[in-house]
Amino acid sequence: MDKKKALLIILDGLGDRAIRELGFKTPLQFAETPHLDKIARMSMVGLMDPIAPGIRAGSDTSHLNLLGYDPYKVYTGRGPFEAAGLDMDIAPGDVAFRCNFATVDENLVVLDRRAGRIKEGTHELVSAINGIKIEDVEIFVKEGVEHRAALVLRGSGLSPYVSDVDPHDTVLKIHEAKPLKPEAEKTARILNEFVKRAYEILKEHPVNKEREKKGLKPANILLPRGAGMAPHLENFVKKYNMKAACVVGTPLIRGICKLAGIHPIDFPGATGSYDTDMKGKIREAIKALARQDYDFVLVNIKATDIAGHDMLPRKKVEVIERIDEAMGYLLEILPEDIVVVITADHSTPCSVGDHSGDAVPIMIYAEDSRAEGSEFNEVACAKGSLRIRGSDLMQMILNATNRADKFGA
Amino acid sequence: MDKKKALLIILDGLGDRAIRELGFKTPLQFAETPHLDKIARMSMVGLMDPIAPGIRAGSDTSHLNLLGYDPYKVYTGRGPFEAAGLDMDIAPGDVAFRCNFATVDENLVVLDRRAGRIKEGTHELVSAINGIKIEDVEIFVKEGVEHRAALVLRGSGLSPYVSDVDPHDTVLKIHEAKPLKPEAEKTARILNEFVKRAYEILKEHPVNKEREKKGLKPANILLPRGAGMAPHLENFVKKYNMKAACVVGTPLIRGICKLAGIHPIDFPGATGSYDTDMKGKIREAIKALARQDYDFVLVNIKATDIAGHDMLPRKKVEVIERIDEAMGYLLEILPEDIVVVITADHSTPCSVGDHSGDAVPIMIYAEDSRAEGSEFNEVACAKGSLRIRGSDLMQMILNATNRADKFGA
Repeated sequence: MDKKKALLIILDGLGDRAIRELGFKTPLQFAETPHLDKIARMSMVGLMDPIAPGIRAGSDTSHLNLLGYDPYKVYTGRGPFEAAGLDMDIAPGDVAFRCNFATVDENLVVLDRRAGRIKEGTHELVSAINGIKIEDVEIFVKEGVEHRAALVLRGSGLSPYVSDVDPHDTVLKIHEAKPLKPEAEKTARILNEFVKRAYEILKEHPVNKEREKKGLKPANILLPRGAGMAPHLENFVKKYNMKAACVVGTPLIRGICKLAGIHPIDFPGATGSYDTDMKGKIREAIKALARQDYDFVLVNIKATDIAGHDMLPRKKVEVIERIDEAMGYLLEILPEDIVVVITADHSTPCSVGDHSGDAVPIMIYAEDSRAEGSEFNEVACAKGSLRIRGSDLMQMILNATNRADKFGA
Repeated sequence: MDKKKALLIILDGLGDRAIRELGFKTPLQFAETPHLDKIARMSMVGLMDPIAPGIRAGSDTSHLNLLGYDPYKVYTGRGPFEAAGLDMDIAPGDVAFRCNFATVDENLVVLDRRAGRIKEGTHELVSAINGIKIEDVEIFVKEGVEHRAALVLRGSGLSPYVSDVDPHDTVLKIHEAKPLKPEAEKTARILNEFVKRAYEILKEHPVNKEREKKGLKPANILLPRGAGMAPHLENFVKKYNMKAACVVGTPLIRGICKLAGIHPIDFPGATGSYDTDMKGKIREAIKALARQDYDFVLVNIKATDIAGHDMLPRKKVEVIERIDEAMGYLLEILPEDIVVVITADHSTPCSVGDHSGDAVPIMIYAEDSRAEGSEFNEVACAKGSLRIRGSDLMQMILNATNRADKFGA
């Protein structure tokens, strides 16, 4: 029984609903996808509920579930995954937040939630507020792309059940973090104190003085949101006995992979945006599998999700057709011993502009896959054999790669 | 509401994957099966995960699950089912093993794991070592076909968590049974002592002296493996209120049936091998249902599984076509009040040479079944209505035979 390797391609938010201007087809039905359809004809196909029927999954909760980590047990908020995605050191029990650098006036009213989409200087700003200790809690900050940052609290008695400081709109005063459960009182207190102290430091920082001189909005406050407690995730490599890597552009998914012990392969073209280098991602993934001895590689392509959020069906069709080209490239370079799974983490219907709980198409291709598909889309795949949940996926992959343990004789 | 009777035909290891030399069809897709297809057109069809998606089931764990006994609760190893299959008296709490008669040299190095596939004399050999008592543990041995035997330990404080004595290869010294959990220390000690004592008796036994004289390998040791604790299985007849029988050739499945209170119908043609008399099994099953007043009969045909393990797709096609002939015979003699379920206990793909976690096709035929199938194979059945797990099967049978209890008003 030859063990195979696995390439899991997650087309983020791919699933959609019927769209009037596409003749009541989904973008995936409407798009010209000769390569995806060719793979479907050689694959087991079907539908997957990322979590359970009708459940609207986030990208984080879905990726956790797909990788075999029950989000109902390990997920309290996206903060720790964002922080890990920025290569912050995260330990189980830490409480972490996403943050924006923002601009406030002297009354702490938000003038710009993104501080003029600040591009330079956040590293210096972060250095001035990183490592502050309040009571017994150490506080770490790291900058992300543009106005983005993450915040980690480490200490005793912390809780993820605190409300956001970010008021999520301008012309509003920043919010006080509130404890959402009694045990979060300390965390809220420390968070509020940190935001205040950071404001006092940031508003006087030379980077901001320089920005003001140039007529740019100062990044004079940090607005935390999305509190979550860092979970212990069983190491993926031990759990499945597969050396694992990922090629993903978005920090959130990168952070989930990092916390699971899945090695991120970074390359400049992976942007997590419309302009992402899709062929490049496929090339890096196959290189990792074929030459660098990885047994499992996760690729995430985010652009489909963005088009869904932007409610742009034609754009989603265009993104899907670019993905199809990359799949043509995959077919050219695919070694025989690799099982390819193509699916989505959730649906992001253009008619909704956000994630929905609709099932997503899935196909599992191996040389010996039952060849049962016709086309790769939400409707055609429903005629296939697979009707699984996200939590079944890893077991299906272990089976298709001939790595599953036998239960019984 | 007329109660019907049920014939459950398990085509062991029937499910498969696409095979290059069969034009990327499965053996079941490739084979000419006019009778199975005819039944499909009159049946509800679909796919079944014997345990759960991607889980690689053994024949034992799957049959337990199909019959309504949760293998995660009742299964610790195949030993007790093998022993029961040889008609040994088994009680809950007994720890049992499969064994081989083997040939060892004076250093207990294995020269032949099957003692030259000994055919005669094992009954005499077994008689010399049956009924030994070590500490408070009674030890029973019974011979099977050729070199096969089973061993039962009965006493206090026994555990199934001991490693195999059988080294599973020649030129290796026999292994010491080791406790895999602390509570198995006594069981390992007694098992090792028994193997030693049995060796002392067997090597001097007249049957072996005679074999040596003839230049045959002596069956001078018994090599236990596959320890398991006999579970309490709720009596099938009480559980479902159906008088039940089985027509099976393999001791393992026969043993599961016996422990569940399903009466084995033995007839000489049921061999559990390629040469099994398939029409004979169908004839015996229908006889039991129509004339002997059984309400439920399980038929297992093992030959499909053997061809999968042997990695012989053409042979599997040939076996399937012979099964189809037997199904033609079934259609000729089938009384109207019998529901026929045809499925498999797991897939045994020829490309893998072992069980896989791929779903299996299933069809449920009754005179009043929703007629929805086209052909009976893994791909065509995926278009049908059934997408069930093995643990759902008995409830489906109770429903189709109009025997299910109503829940509510």
